[in-house]
Amino acid sequence: MRYFDHVATNPLIPEALDAMLPYFKEDFGNPLSVYGLGQSAKQAIEDARVQVAGLVNCKPQEIVFTSSGAEANNMALRGLAMARRKEGNHIIVSRVEHHSVLNSARALEKEDFVVTYLVPDKFGMVSSADIKKAINKDTILISITHASSEIGTIEPISEIVKIGHEHNITVHADGVATTGNIPVDVMQLGVDAYSISAHQFYGPKGAGALYLRRGQRILPLIYGGIQENGRRAGTENVPAIVGMGKAAEIAKVELSSRMAHVKRLRDRLIDGITKIEKVHITGHPEMRLPGHASFVVEYIEGEGMLLMLEANDIYSASGSACTSKALKASPILLSMGYSSSVTHGSIVFSLGISNTDEDVDQVLEYLPKIIKRLREMSPFAKEGWGDIKEEGHV
Amino acid sequence: MRYFDHVATNPLIPEALDAMLPYFKEDFGNPLSVYGLGQSAKQAIEDARVQVAGLVNCKPQEIVFTSSGAEANNMALRGLAMARRKEGNHIIVSRVEHHSVLNSARALEKEDFVVTYLVPDKFGMVSSADIKKAINKDTILISITHASSEIGTIEPISEIVKIGHEHNITVHADGVATTGNIPVDVMQLGVDAYSISAHQFYGPKGAGALYLRRGQRILPLIYGGIQENGRRAGTENVPAIVGMGKAAEIAKVELSSRMAHVKRLRDRLIDGITKIEKVHITGHPEMRLPGHASFVVEYIEGEGMLLMLEANDIYSASGSACTSKALKASPILLSMGYSSSVTHGSIVFSLGISNTDEDVDQVLEYLPKIIKRLREMSPFAKEGWGDIKEEGHV
Repeated sequence: MRYFDHVATNPLIPEALDAMLPYFKEDFGNPLSVYGLGQSAKQAIEDARVQVAGLVNCKPQEIVFTSSGAEANNMALRGLAMARRKEGNHIIVSRVEHHSVLNSARALEKEDFVVTYLVPDKFGMVSSADIKKAINKDTILISITHASSEIGTIEPISEIVKIGHEHNITVHADGVATTGNIPVDVMQLGVDAYSISAHQFYGPKGAGALYLRRGQRILPLIYGGIQENGRRAGTENVPAIVGMGKAAEIAKVELSSRMAHVKRLRDRLIDGITKIEKVHITGHPEMRLPGHASFVVEYIEGEGMLLMLEANDIYSASGSACTSKALKASPILLSMGYSSSVTHGSIVFSLGISNTDEDVDQVLEYLPKIIKRLREMSPFAKEGWGDIKEEGHV
Repeated sequence: MRYFDHVATNPLIPEALDAMLPYFKEDFGNPLSVYGLGQSAKQAIEDARVQVAGLVNCKPQEIVFTSSGAEANNMALRGLAMARRKEGNHIIVSRVEHHSVLNSARALEKEDFVVTYLVPDKFGMVSSADIKKAINKDTILISITHASSEIGTIEPISEIVKIGHEHNITVHADGVATTGNIPVDVMQLGVDAYSISAHQFYGPKGAGALYLRRGQRILPLIYGGIQENGRRAGTENVPAIVGMGKAAEIAKVELSSRMAHVKRLRDRLIDGITKIEKVHITGHPEMRLPGHASFVVEYIEGEGMLLMLEANDIYSASGSACTSKALKASPILLSMGYSSSVTHGSIVFSLGISNTDEDVDQVLEYLPKIIKRLREMSPFAKEGWGDIKEEGHV
C-alpha cells in the first residue's frame, strides 16, 4: 500500500500502542479513584500531559485533553466566545478553516454572535491587513488555522496574534495539521489557545488536546465531573491519552528528520506532477506543510483519479476527509479564486514517515497516464481546453 | 486485587481488545476516505452500531457514537433543549442525576432556561406525581437517570416517559449505569434519547453513544464534518467504537448470567454489612442495580474506610468517582434526607463479572474490623451515639 493521505489519519506508531496496552488491561483504573489503581492511571495522564506540553512548548497544566482535534476546536470557539460574550459578540475566522471551526462559528451566529469570514489570497494565505480591517469594538475572538490540511499553506499566526492582542482580542489557532509535523512553539506564536490532534502525529484516534494559556478563561464544552480541572468532563480515555503522550515524545525527537524526509519526497512529487499539462499546485509554493502536495487537475473529477490511483494501490485524497463524501466543490479552493469546475479536479498527496522514493516513483508513473485517460473520457476536454477559467490563477 | 468499583470503570474484556487491535494497525483508515482502507474502517463502525443497537433494542441508525457517557449526556441536555428552545425554556431533572446532567442543566440556566431539580424520596426514587406537578406550559425536556451509580436505585422511566409524552415533552434517560448491566429496551421504555457508556459494560474508555429516537431533533454538541450523519463531528475513534460494539454483543449474550452472578454476591454483601451496628443500606432495597451495594456508616469518614480496605487489597468507593476527590458531602444522599455528617460515611461496593465469593468473604471479614477501629478513633463516636440524626431514615 502506498499511502499518501496522512492528513486524513495515520497508523499508530508501535511504541504508542505498546505504551497504551497496559491501560486496557491491568492498569484499567479510573483516574479519579482515590486508591492506588486510580492513582496509577492518574499518573499516566499527567506524564502524557508533560509529553504533549513538551511538543508545543507550554506548561503541562496548560494542556486540556479532549477526544479529538474537532472537539478542541469546538471547545475553543464556543468556550472562548462564551467566556467573553459580555464584552462583545464579534468573531473573526477565515474561509480556509476546518469545518469544526467554521461550523462552530456558524452555530454561534445563531446565538447572536457576528462572524467575519476572511477571504484568503490565491495561495490560501490570510492577510494581517484584512484582520486589522475586520476588527471592530465588539471583536473578542480570532480563530485562524495554523495550516490548512487541504492546501498546506502555513498562516502567519504570530503576526495575527500581535494584532489581536493589541486590540485585547483572544486568539486561537487550529494546530491539528501542524502539531508534530512542523516546529510548534505556542509561547513564540503567542496564541491564547491552540488545538492538537494525536492521530495527526502517529498517536491514536480518540485523543486531542487544547492548549490554553495560563489564566485564559473558557467555558467547558462538556460539563460534569472534575476531570481536567473542571474544564472537560468525562472519564479520561486513559489508553488514548497515554498513546498521545508517547507519540508526542517521539515526534519531538524525530521532528527534523521527519520533516526533511517528507519534504524531499514532496518536492519530487511536486516537480513531477506539475510537469503534467494543465495541472497546478494549490496553496502556497513555499510556506506550506513539508509533507503536503496539493493540486488541481483541469478537466477531470478528483474522485476518478482517486479510484484509478487506488486500483494501482496508491491512496490519496480529494479535498478534506470531512467533506470528501459530500462531493461538493471545495469551499477553500473557491475562496482562493478557483472556479467551481476546476475545484472538482482537486487532488491532495500528504506524506508520512513511511513513504519511500518508490512510492513517489509509482505516483509519477501512474498519475500522468490516469490523467490522460480520464481526459480522453471527459466531455470538457473534448470541447477544447481553455474553456474553464481560474480567476486570479495562472 | 478485589475490585468493587465497577461503577467507576471496568477492565476491558479481552475479546473487545482483540477486536480493536487491527484498527490501531493495518486497518487504520479514516472512515470518511473513499478508498478501500477507509471503507473497511467505515464498515467496522457500522457493524459496531448494529451491535450497540442490539443491546438496547433500537435501529442502528438511531445510535450516535460519542467519546463518553458524559458527552452523550451533554449532547442530550444541550442539544435537545436547544432544538426546542422556541417552544419553551423549562427543563426537569432530578437531584440524583450524574454531574454531567446536573452541570449541563446549570449551564443552560445561564442561557435563559429554567430548571426544576426534583427531590427524590428517601430511597432516591423520583416520583411520577412530582414530575406531573413540575410540568408547565414551557416544559420541553425531562432528563432522569435510569439508575444512579451512587445509590443504585432504578427509576420509573417508562412511567415518566408516559407523563412526558402526554404533554409533548422530550424525555431523555441517562443509561450509563444500566446499559449492559440490566435489560434495557429503549422501545419499551419509550424514551426519546438514552445515554450509553462502553466502559460500564467492559468496553473501552473513550467510547459512548446516544440513542436518538428516529426523527428526534437535536443540535450537535461537536460541530464539523459529516461524521455520524452530521450529528457528531470528529474523526471516529474507530478502535474504541469497535471495542464498544464487541463488548455490547457479549453483554447481550451474557446479561442474565452476569446479573445472577453479581446479584447473588451483592445480596451476601448487603446481608453481611447491614449486620454491622449503625450501618444502613442507601438507595432502594429492591429496585436497584443487581451488582450495587451502597451504605452509610455512621460516625466515620468514607475515605478512611477506603484506605484501610485498600490496605487489605479491597477497592471500593465513597460516592461517585467524579466527585470523590472533591471530598464534599454527597449531594445525592443529602437530597434523600441524610444529614451532612452521615453522608461522609458513605461507601459503595459495585460488583462485576470477575468478583468471587472469596472477594465477598474478605470484605465481610475486614470491613467490620475497620469500622470498629475507625470508630474508636472518631470524636463523634466517643461523644456517644445518637447525636447524628438522619431525617426520614431509620
